[in-house]
Amino acid sequence: MEIDVSGAADGWIRLVHLSPPSLQDNTADADRLINQLKKQLNTKCIKIDLNVLQQLPVRLRGWGYAARCVVVKERDADLWHLIGILNPLENQRVVGAAVDLGTSRVVIRLVELSTGKRLFNASFDNPQLGVGPDILTRIHACDQLGGLEKLNRMIIDELNRQIRNACLASGIDTSDVYLLALAGNTTMTHLFMGLSPRWLIREPYIPVVNSPDVQKADAYGLQINPAGRVFILPNIGSYFGGDLIAGILHSGISRQADPAILVDVGTNAEVVLGNDSWLVACAGAAGPALEGGMAQIGMMAGPGVIDRLRIDPDTRAFQVHTIDEMLPMGICGSGMIDLAANLFLAGMIDLRGRFVPEVCGRKLVMQARIPYLEIVSANESGTGQPLMISQVDLDSLIRSKAAMYTILETITESVGMALTELKTFHVAGTFGAFIDPVSAVTIGMLPDLPPDTFQSLGNTSLEGATRVLTSCESMTTIEGIKEKITYLELNVNQTFMNRFSAAKFMPHTDRSRFPSVKTA
Amino acid sequence: MEIDVSGAADGWIRLVHLSPPSLQDNTADADRLINQLKKQLNTKCIKIDLNVLQQLPVRLRGWGYAARCVVVKERDADLWHLIGILNPLENQRVVGAAVDLGTSRVVIRLVELSTGKRLFNASFDNPQLGVGPDILTRIHACDQLGGLEKLNRMIIDELNRQIRNACLASGIDTSDVYLLALAGNTTMTHLFMGLSPRWLIREPYIPVVNSPDVQKADAYGLQINPAGRVFILPNIGSYFGGDLIAGILHSGISRQADPAILVDVGTNAEVVLGNDSWLVACAGAAGPALEGGMAQIGMMAGPGVIDRLRIDPDTRAFQVHTIDEMLPMGICGSGMIDLAANLFLAGMIDLRGRFVPEVCGRKLVMQARIPYLEIVSANESGTGQPLMISQVDLDSLIRSKAAMYTILETITESVGMALTELKTFHVAGTFGAFIDPVSAVTIGMLPDLPPDTFQSLGNTSLEGATRVLTSCESMTTIEGIKEKITYLELNVNQTFMNRFSAAKFMPHTDRSRFPSVKTA
Repeated sequence: MEIDVSGAADGWIRLVHLSPPSLQDNTADADRLINQLKKQLNTKCIKIDLNVLQQLPVRLRGWGYAARCVVVKERDADLWHLIGILNPLENQRVVGAAVDLGTSRVVIRLVELSTGKRLFNASFDNPQLGVGPDILTRIHACDQLGGLEKLNRMIIDELNRQIRNACLASGIDTSDVYLLALAGNTTMTHLFMGLSPRWLIREPYIPVVNSPDVQKADAYGLQINPAGRVFILPNIGSYFGGDLIAGILHSGISRQADPAILVDVGTNAEVVLGNDSWLVACAGAAGPALEGGMAQIGMMAGPGVIDRLRIDPDTRAFQVHTIDEMLPMGICGSGMIDLAANLFLAGMIDLRGRFVPEVCGRKLVMQARIPYLEIVSANESGTGQPLMISQVDLDSLIRSKAAMYTILETITESVGMALTELKTFHVAGTFGAFIDPVSAVTIGMLPDLPPDTFQSLGNTSLEGATRVLTSCESMTTIEGIKEKITYLELNVNQTFMNRFSAAKFMPHTDRSRFPSVKTA
Repeated sequence: MEIDVSGAADGWIRLVHLSPPSLQDNTADADRLINQLKKQLNTKCIKIDLNVLQQLPVRLRGWGYAARCVVVKERDADLWHLIGILNPLENQRVVGAAVDLGTSRVVIRLVELSTGKRLFNASFDNPQLGVGPDILTRIHACDQLGGLEKLNRMIIDELNRQIRNACLASGIDTSDVYLLALAGNTTMTHLFMGLSPRWLIREPYIPVVNSPDVQKADAYGLQINPAGRVFILPNIGSYFGGDLIAGILHSGISRQADPAILVDVGTNAEVVLGNDSWLVACAGAAGPALEGGMAQIGMMAGPGVIDRLRIDPDTRAFQVHTIDEMLPMGICGSGMIDLAANLFLAGMIDLRGRFVPEVCGRKLVMQARIPYLEIVSANESGTGQPLMISQVDLDSLIRSKAAMYTILETITESVGMALTELKTFHVAGTFGAFIDPVSAVTIGMLPDLPPDTFQSLGNTSLEGATRVLTSCESMTTIEGIKEKITYLELNVNQTFMNRFSAAKFMPHTDRSRFPSVKTA
């Protein structure tokens, strides 16, 4: 998929032709260029970076008073910056880097700004994993002396290394990278900016900043073009980050008249419901089970991880599919959902998600009084050990799916809609890419909508950040999104708890909500 | 004289009191502060420097959500920057540095921004004198490889050294210096910014930039507060620099209804005529004689230099006054003017400025066929040699004074005024500080106006730069001045040459223009 670059060609890169100076028109070089750019950009104010200004007289004269100008706009002021001036006769690449700054994985993508062409993708572990696997551990690590600086340096250094490698692989120089757009959760962007995340997790949960200004790359220690600029997608609050704003931007729900929903599932479930005139958002703990983080054999999606699973309804034989079709080593969130759905359809678990011993047969064993079901036998597994799922794992999954459904029910109800009215249901992230919506509906995690209602959006953080690079208007669009969003605090009150309890059944206490789910 | 600081207290430094965050109001720290500042500054957009943002959460909490904020405005966009955040209960000094960047001498002044109090003045030789004494030599030096970088480093390094010393002497830290305002001629500001001055002296005489943007001090390599900003007073063209804009700002001629004139005399004479609705400016070569640069005994004003001189009309004895009352070593511009005026009044030179041998007597000697007049005898001089003035020196002075008068005549005539209509005549610079207007009128360099019409403004560059520091509106005022100015190209045509020829007489061919000048 090539993205929309309608705004790009006359976006950040502008070709200008100036009349040369004369005794009759002795306007200074900078003023001559600025006056012309002001017209083309329809703006009142343009600033020139000092290093560009220093290059200006020789370059303008060498190029016959024509130039390709790299410009960038302030977030919310009518002010543009001229950050690069290039030979109009050469087609030197002007590149942007989109960054999805995840807690666990980071993805960078190089994009040619004039064409929107994607040059390179790289993904790598967030080096902060060395300090702690999750957000909380890292925030606490910042309480130690030098902790914040350490975490900040880790990510900046690794980004520099990865951008350098990506440039090398793409045959460009790091100085060709003029823009970087970054989307991440509130904690990750705070750590990136060197801002203390301490107050994000302490009542009343206050970020240092919600809408970071456009800054120079070198202010962050990023080694791209010295005049390069960094866009950071804004967050709405401590628990609602720029990654989700990127998702809204990419999904397009804020541009359509029909209400649609966007769900991003990780440790938190983040949900946005809305259309072109309103947006409601909420976030809630859906539990790490959906990421495969909780089960003993749970793993993040990766080679050898079970991502799809079927149980033959007659033989009850397990058919597992692993990523890269290697021997199975563990199971990820989408595999877990397939597993639970198929166990339910095969009658191996009951309405409450409890193993049914008489159906499970000898695959079910007791270890320390906890029932375990063998999914893959020792001689079929990549670990030499059988892959087992416990009742505890299943209980955890069921709490997660119940939380997810309750959040969806609560947010739609808050605007007086029913879940069944949704025409489009976007599912973001790795989770969305791998999940089988039929399985998710079967266990009652997602509402019972026609399968083609569910749309997997892939890495919405990365796509949103990419869009910021390729469309000048994106940052303005984002400000509009931010202003439209009403953040719904999920009050865990009696109504919520009642809904949650009802959703802890397979697929739901109210069976009529899931007509498509047919059990034996 | 203490300057106007009406704008300063609520200028760059703003006291804010914020309501602390709560679960009901979980606005991010930065947004909370910005929202309040926007109201106080009546602006739509404020950016926060990254280092300030990083300090924000701890400081705001430590100070009970109150702070003294250091803010600064973009030159011509509705955008402010928050560049410092200080304890509201401490009275930490916030300082600005005003710089008069002269070709020969540089003056810096530290000013407390909250009170306008002047903390320290220092003046020192422009270290670029080591490369060349005048503008032309330095511009040519830039044609050599690394020449521009060398000249740029010379002035930046010296400014850093002098600012460091000035801070030390004032008991402040260089990080207390948040603003620097600099006024200089177009070449000096180009060299300061690292911009090639090459095209300033080549037809069609194009500066790289006329209105430099507000930049961070570290972009220039200046070692003040890392978030500090630099204002550079704009120039109108190659030959009309920010020093003169500073002069217009300081003189106030652009704020008054009555037309007034401002003259800044150096190697070039720069003249501005106007009032609150129009301004006409021109610059022309007045000759270095007026700076004392040409005569063999000519010197810049300094200790032991004759700055005032009288000739007893009866005895024709010379009474010289030297700066610091040391033994005389040479003569500066104001001394030369006194000398020429007194020689003329005593009948020792004629209408054309030629020595009259029968009146001069034995003080007049011939050396290599050139007549020399002894001003100070060998045993009264500080050099052990007699101080002599030659006919060549006098001729040069007369050409300079004639050029000056012709420029004044031309500019007033261009707006249909007569020189005699001027109610205020500002004379800027060292020249203005030392010159005796009566002498200048006597030789016909300045028009024959009542002596109290002439006002010496002192170092208008420094004063203008100081005003930029102490009044937030100054940069806007300056933009207004720039827009109002019409630059008058001095066409050296027949009319000009006729006027020049007429002005080469003492005081003028048209004696009726100088009724106050009574010769014996």
